[in-house]
Amino acid sequence: MPAVLREHESLDDLQNGYFIIQSEEGFRYGIDAVLLSGFARVKPGEKVLDMGTGTGILPILLAAKTEGESFTGLEIQEKSAEMAGRSVAYNHLEGRVRIVAGDIKEAGAIFGPASFDVVVSNPPYMTGSHGLVNPNEAKAVARHEVLCTLEDLVRETAAVLTSRGRFYLVHRPFRLAEIMGMLMKYRLEPKRMRLVYPYVDKEPNMVLLEACKGGNPRIQVERPLIVYERPNVYTDEIREIYGDGR
Amino acid sequence: MPAVLREHESLDDLQNGYFIIQSEEGFRYGIDAVLLSGFARVKPGEKVLDMGTGTGILPILLAAKTEGESFTGLEIQEKSAEMAGRSVAYNHLEGRVRIVAGDIKEAGAIFGPASFDVVVSNPPYMTGSHGLVNPNEAKAVARHEVLCTLEDLVRETAAVLTSRGRFYLVHRPFRLAEIMGMLMKYRLEPKRMRLVYPYVDKEPNMVLLEACKGGNPRIQVERPLIVYERPNVYTDEIREIYGDGR
Repeated sequence: MPAVLREHESLDDLQNGYFIIQSEEGFRYGIDAVLLSGFARVKPGEKVLDMGTGTGILPILLAAKTEGESFTGLEIQEKSAEMAGRSVAYNHLEGRVRIVAGDIKEAGAIFGPASFDVVVSNPPYMTGSHGLVNPNEAKAVARHEVLCTLEDLVRETAAVLTSRGRFYLVHRPFRLAEIMGMLMKYRLEPKRMRLVYPYVDKEPNMVLLEACKGGNPRIQVERPLIVYERPNVYTDEIREIYGDGR
Repeated sequence: MPAVLREHESLDDLQNGYFIIQSEEGFRYGIDAVLLSGFARVKPGEKVLDMGTGTGILPILLAAKTEGESFTGLEIQEKSAEMAGRSVAYNHLEGRVRIVAGDIKEAGAIFGPASFDVVVSNPPYMTGSHGLVNPNEAKAVARHEVLCTLEDLVRETAAVLTSRGRFYLVHRPFRLAEIMGMLMKYRLEPKRMRLVYPYVDKEPNMVLLEACKGGNPRIQVERPLIVYERPNVYTDEIREIYGDGR
């Protein structure tokens, strides 16, 4: 076990020259984060905030593939924030990526208005905490709106974005109408959407959205993103987003 | 030319035992109406209103394929309403289908509250009337929001629907966020959505939506509806919706 790791942690190769430290039993990054990093557009010199960064996967993936100036990961769980900080250090990304321990609900107060050109988020998908044994456990917090609701996320995103700043979000399709309504409530106009279908003949299980602060009401719905060609075989596009030959 | 036709009209076989009279040079029904008739669900005994019925295509298609009790087509253009009425008579559907000449903007006043279980509409897709030579021409009225805006349509739909009544709409994806916001504004909760992609690797060019008056906020996004397998060859699903072997 490399010295950088604590007990029950793994060091995983992101196949792009970088590595990520993850808890072996806690929340581990999924295809959602990878697809969001492929969907988000970060221009050279832009400042990016990840709301609820968890392992720090999104700032690290975006630092690797874009020429953004800085990437900030906000994470409320001290243990996750500390682990994400070690991933940043392991990758020698301290010059461009920083992890901030703090609450999404206070992002506006922490960072101040118009402090980011881009916000990204892979937030909890499920409402409430019904049936959760331990609502403060890392996995639960990542999946259920225990500590932060959709409205908290959208309100604080609107607060920290510059005018015409962009918000990139991955979520579940069953909440699409609610998400669009919430974005528009805070003047984050939905501008681009892509649905992710596991197979060409199946219902989508993820939606990728881009909203623009103060934009005009016109949305571009993109071609379907299909994950599997057949069981265990990714489509060419997914292989390309992962950037490897799996 | 059969006696039922006026000059510059054609009698077209709907391939389901019914026929439709259309102007040879005016607005002619398209795949949009056919896909909406396939998407809409009408239960036995229900009362259905088509907002802006044009040729009367939707009431006739729905009368043919469902056990709904009655189908009303509301049409503001006298000439279209008269022609649609002749199609109803030609098909001997007077017992179940009626065409009413009137304005969508006054539907609530014309029919009264809670007068329909289901509303369907294939409304104009384009905002405003920019660039139109003759904004009162039948084609222009069918395509541009010359006589009726999205808000007029949604407001009047909410007015005539029963509690838990359903609204089925076909529209263009670029207006999706605006449509969802408008539906929610009038308590028509988006419940089901299907995107129509011309090809599996192309952007969608139509969206089918079901909303429920007073429903809970949870939407089911369905598998993609793909129109063409290759140029000029419909997919099996489209052939099935058309109900013929083309």
